[in-house]
Amino acid sequence: MLTLDLLGIVVFAVSGGLLAVRNQLDIVGVVVLAMVTGLGGGVIRDVIIGADPAAFADWRYLLAPAVAGLVTFLWHPAVGRFERSINVFDAFGLGLFAVAGAVKAYDAGLGLLASAVLGAVTAVGGGVLRDVLADRVPVVLRDGELYAIPAIAGATVAVLGKELDLAPVVVTLTGAGLTIGWRLLALRRGWVAPRPRTSPPPP
Amino acid sequence: MLTLDLLGIVVFAVSGGLLAVRNQLDIVGVVVLAMVTGLGGGVIRDVIIGADPAAFADWRYLLAPAVAGLVTFLWHPAVGRFERSINVFDAFGLGLFAVAGAVKAYDAGLGLLASAVLGAVTAVGGGVLRDVLADRVPVVLRDGELYAIPAIAGATVAVLGKELDLAPVVVTLTGAGLTIGWRLLALRRGWVAPRPRTSPPPP
Amino acid sequence: MLTLDLLGIVVFAVSGGLLAVRNQLDIVGVVVLAMVTGLGGGVIRDVIIGADPAAFADWRYLLAPAVAGLVTFLWHPAVGRFERSINVFDAFGLGLFAVAGAVKAYDAGLGLLASAVLGAVTAVGGGVLRDVLADRVPVVLRDGELYAIPAIAGATVAVLGKELDLAPVVVTLTGAGLTIGWRLLALRRGWVAPRPRTSPPPP
Repeated sequence: MLTLDLLGIVVFAVSGGLLAVRNQLDIVGVVVLAMVTGLGGGVIRDVIIGADPAAFADWRYLLAPAVAGLVTFLWHPAVGRFERSINVFDAFGLGLFAVAGAVKAYDAGLGLLASAVLGAVTAVGGGVLRDVLADRVPVVLRDGELYAIPAIAGATVAVLGKELDLAPVVVTLTGAGLTIGWRLLALRRGWVAPRPRTSPPPP
Repeated sequence: MLTLDLLGIVVFAVSGGLLAVRNQLDIVGVVVLAMVTGLGGGVIRDVIIGADPAAFADWRYLLAPAVAGLVTFLWHPAVGRFERSINVFDAFGLGLFAVAGAVKAYDAGLGLLASAVLGAVTAVGGGVLRDVLADRVPVVLRDGELYAIPAIAGATVAVLGKELDLAPVVVTLTGAGLTIGWRLLALRRGWVAPRPRTSPPPP
Repeated sequence: MLTLDLLGIVVFAVSGGLLAVRNQLDIVGVVVLAMVTGLGGGVIRDVIIGADPAAFADWRYLLAPAVAGLVTFLWHPAVGRFERSINVFDAFGLGLFAVAGAVKAYDAGLGLLASAVLGAVTAVGGGVLRDVLADRVPVVLRDGELYAIPAIAGATVAVLGKELDLAPVVVTLTGAGLTIGWRLLALRRGWVAPRPRTSPPPP
């Protein structure tokens, strides 16, 4: 489980590091964006549920995205070439984080809706912080990609599974499976999230 | 009280949803900006005072701004037409949130100044997060509108009322009344907050 | 110690106030940016380690940066003229905050790496929030200045000193001394942090 967690963190961290390199940030920016993208969603969740942030409780959680950021800083042309395959790994990170976040919130005593929302926050929160630090509107809010919707769907399924007292492995597989499968299909088929139909009147 | 709270949340949420529609965000962006604007100020306050965020303790607090966001997404031309009257409701939300936030902080044992500041944070924090996510300087910091100043004034009056052991209804009416009255007068008469007199030397 | 703390807060607050004046924010923006810059790093640290934020526990911590912001608002041409010397005081604030943050995290039971990271977060977090509110990429992430690196170096030295059970005064002097000395030398000699070598392929 720790291995899966670290893998998800590293994949997210690489996306943060690559954005930092593209935006011409310096070495501090690349490492910080990598760490924030990899760990931010879980930290927001833990701060909201009042738990000690897992990211600061085990040094491997801090070291993994920092090293991923350094590697991206040093060898970004090579790392960038893997970006298409990173999208696939990213879908796995999305599904795992959505389920892990929702389950942790549920186990902390939060309600069904709150737990599902916090699962989605865990999955997309790091990317939102990354984009805020890079001074752009978070892509998850504007690009019309099916990214947050599969995440909250998987988190919801996981929370319902917990409520029905299903075995943890079933909860994880159905929840993360839904998120990952939907996300990968959306990537392959170009499915998009709806946008507002027409422009509203000016303010 | 819950009804008033939910009304304030929904009014704030509509302002977040309309900004998202104007900025061409997708459905995720509209719903997220609505939720963040409606709930963000209270969440920041609760995280700072170490309380379980009220927004995640009752599913109605999460559902109300999400539905407001969806309605704004679907029928934004109609919603946008109500914007001028929304400004009036917004003043009520501002006053109620400033007082509720200050009282909650005071009851949690914080000092007078800290409670007043957290009242203002409760009232304007959601709008600040909305603008950060929409990638613009928060309007409350730059437009010269009398918005945060009435909020902190009302929060201060509420905190002083608590310190003097006045009845809760008196505290709420005087504090929220000051904020709402001042804000509505500022809107009607075009009162503004001061700006720096001249430009400073370049950095 | 309180005096040193307040001095660091005020120096950071002035940098926030000056940025707000330069960006034509109104009086609310100048005071808020001053308070956020002076107090933000410590608040982030305290929220993450689960402590009551020190900034809200003593009214002097709130009043000092608010007054610094007001003074900057009123007399920014005079304040701006001191900016070069402010850079020197800023280096002292950086060193003191890095060590104080790292020691507080260590005393709260966090590990070595987590404490060093939180020391750096304490030192640079306020400036990051300032820049996010001013709608720009945080300078600490992009300018190639040696700012965060001396901070995390000093925080690391302080944490190692704690681990070796050195006397508090030794911990503070070596940690803060390293940060301050390195930062001042970097300012004087124009030392910079590395940047990515070439642009990566477009996304």
